[in-house]
Amino acid sequence: MRAAIFRGAFAIQVEQIPDATILAPTDAVVRITHASICGTDLWPYRGQGTYQPGWQIGHEWMGMVEDIGSEVRTLKRGDRVIAPYDFCDGTCEFCRKGLDSACLQGGLWGFGHEGGQAEAIRARFADATLVALPSAVEGDEALLKALLPLTDNMAAGHHAAVSAGVRPGGTVAVIGDGAVGLCAMLAALRLGAERLIVLGHQAQRLTLARQFGATDVVTSRGEQGVRQVIELTEGGADAVLECVGTEEAINMAVNMTRPGGTVGFVGVPQGSGQIPLERMFSSNIGLRGGLAPARAYLPELLADVLAGKLDPSPVLDMTVSLAEVAAGYAAMDQRQAIKVLVQP
Amino acid sequence: MRAAIFRGAFAIQVEQIPDATILAPTDAVVRITHASICGTDLWPYRGQGTYQPGWQIGHEWMGMVEDIGSEVRTLKRGDRVIAPYDFCDGTCEFCRKGLDSACLQGGLWGFGHEGGQAEAIRARFADATLVALPSAVEGDEALLKALLPLTDNMAAGHHAAVSAGVRPGGTVAVIGDGAVGLCAMLAALRLGAERLIVLGHQAQRLTLARQFGATDVVTSRGEQGVRQVIELTEGGADAVLECVGTEEAINMAVNMTRPGGTVGFVGVPQGSGQIPLERMFSSNIGLRGGLAPARAYLPELLADVLAGKLDPSPVLDMTVSLAEVAAGYAAMDQRQAIKVLVQP
Repeated sequence: MRAAIFRGAFAIQVEQIPDATILAPTDAVVRITHASICGTDLWPYRGQGTYQPGWQIGHEWMGMVEDIGSEVRTLKRGDRVIAPYDFCDGTCEFCRKGLDSACLQGGLWGFGHEGGQAEAIRARFADATLVALPSAVEGDEALLKALLPLTDNMAAGHHAAVSAGVRPGGTVAVIGDGAVGLCAMLAALRLGAERLIVLGHQAQRLTLARQFGATDVVTSRGEQGVRQVIELTEGGADAVLECVGTEEAINMAVNMTRPGGTVGFVGVPQGSGQIPLERMFSSNIGLRGGLAPARAYLPELLADVLAGKLDPSPVLDMTVSLAEVAAGYAAMDQRQAIKVLVQP
Repeated sequence: MRAAIFRGAFAIQVEQIPDATILAPTDAVVRITHASICGTDLWPYRGQGTYQPGWQIGHEWMGMVEDIGSEVRTLKRGDRVIAPYDFCDGTCEFCRKGLDSACLQGGLWGFGHEGGQAEAIRARFADATLVALPSAVEGDEALLKALLPLTDNMAAGHHAAVSAGVRPGGTVAVIGDGAVGLCAMLAALRLGAERLIVLGHQAQRLTLARQFGATDVVTSRGEQGVRQVIELTEGGADAVLECVGTEEAINMAVNMTRPGGTVGFVGVPQGSGQIPLERMFSSNIGLRGGLAPARAYLPELLADVLAGKLDPSPVLDMTVSLAEVAAGYAAMDQRQAIKVLVQP
């Protein structure tokens, strides 16, 4: 079968690899119909981090069950399934607590495991990890496209909003206008945010933010951006969703949060880890977030997408075939696309 | 009247100052019967921070109402009152939310305002700030001593426990064996902690911690201390109460928290503000806390002290008169006392 392989900076190649097969009785083999490229896939693409040449890449995917191991109970051949970016055993302490991203046997697709930008995949812990979709979705490409971000970015946006304690009537600031930031806006509105301020720099993305329901747009950076949010909110936002991960973004987030409020952070932290701890202390600002428990969130978000109440599909603004996946990376790297759908 | 005045490092002097009087219609004048020295009072004493020579000092106090302004409604002359370390107007957005420590017109006793280590005090926003005690407490010195820590340290300990989400049956680690750490232990047990690990270094304080109900004591520092807590808890404590404030303590706290858990921090942050943000991200560890809303917590904690269910008085292990207050500072500075009661 064909799969996207990371070969080094700016080198994502589609290569022939051995067919996905059942290796453990809890495995399924899934024929991938939809995958996507994540902002974090751009890190190895840009030569950052420790991704190893030769590893498969891609952790966002959906498809059809083609085979199941002898212990798989909840799925059958022909089921359409969606996967969270993180596989999980479903039985450990953290899975039981709804924190599948900390699963003791878990991991991320790609990163040395089977990858999702491929024709098929060996899906570990299939019962625990995969969620079957109703057969009614079949053939409804718009609906399938709306479901795909639930694999990762929409779960991350939701996690930011939940971690920051977004409540009905609250004022929310979202830092970042990438796919996660845009999904965080949808999540905040879904949880009842009344005022929604987005901080970003890309005109096209900010237009989409407005379409999604952002009430205010702030394009200034650093202290100037913080000042604007403080002014707009007369003292800071109740909840700030940090969807970038840079030191500047985390510092901005803490500094624009209202006393007693919370920063929900889902941008992968980069930088030294220096934060305005004194402001957190004097103003009782909380910081929480991290790797989203995407599996735990799937049923709830899925129900809303199926009911037509949630549609993150506009973040997927470009589609490529698996053969063209490298062009998808290049488009995202050059900010010609927000997020790329890959159709094997 | 006489009051303790900060004159510079290691120079706390009892001086004659003008008598406390009503300056605003919302003021009360309170004759102070009990005050105490806080760990944070030791900072200016040790020449740290920006405390100005000439300022009154002391923010922990109780006493009898001697006079009230024309707008004071809930108090009368002769009432015994307890004050939180922070005065607050009771009407602003944050007071209404129960976050009096962020009151828009609030402040701390001392720090350029009237101080609590004195014979009397002008108490601002008396209705909002002071809490009247039942007359039955009069003459019960043991009970009054048990109430005094509610002005600050017990509120801080409770805030650490609440911020960290301590729940019945949970495993809690407390970093710090000072008065706040000891109060945090009482708070954690009060909220139902089943296992309570304390990290500290002073034999006498750790003995008290055991008396309070600590199930485990860890005396190692840094990574070694973290490793021990990880081992004792098989993966980290559900809630970690950080009651020191140093960079090492905050880093230890994050590193010994179980995935999905929370650090409640009430130690005033010192150092660069560098924290293990990557661990917080990968393990979904939250950080929240700060200046305790002591006024908001007073009724609840008061009820438990009056009912005999809570007794933090053992943290007050030395008593001095106001004239001897300098000796109290010296004893705390040299760790000969955990916390000093001052009786004007």
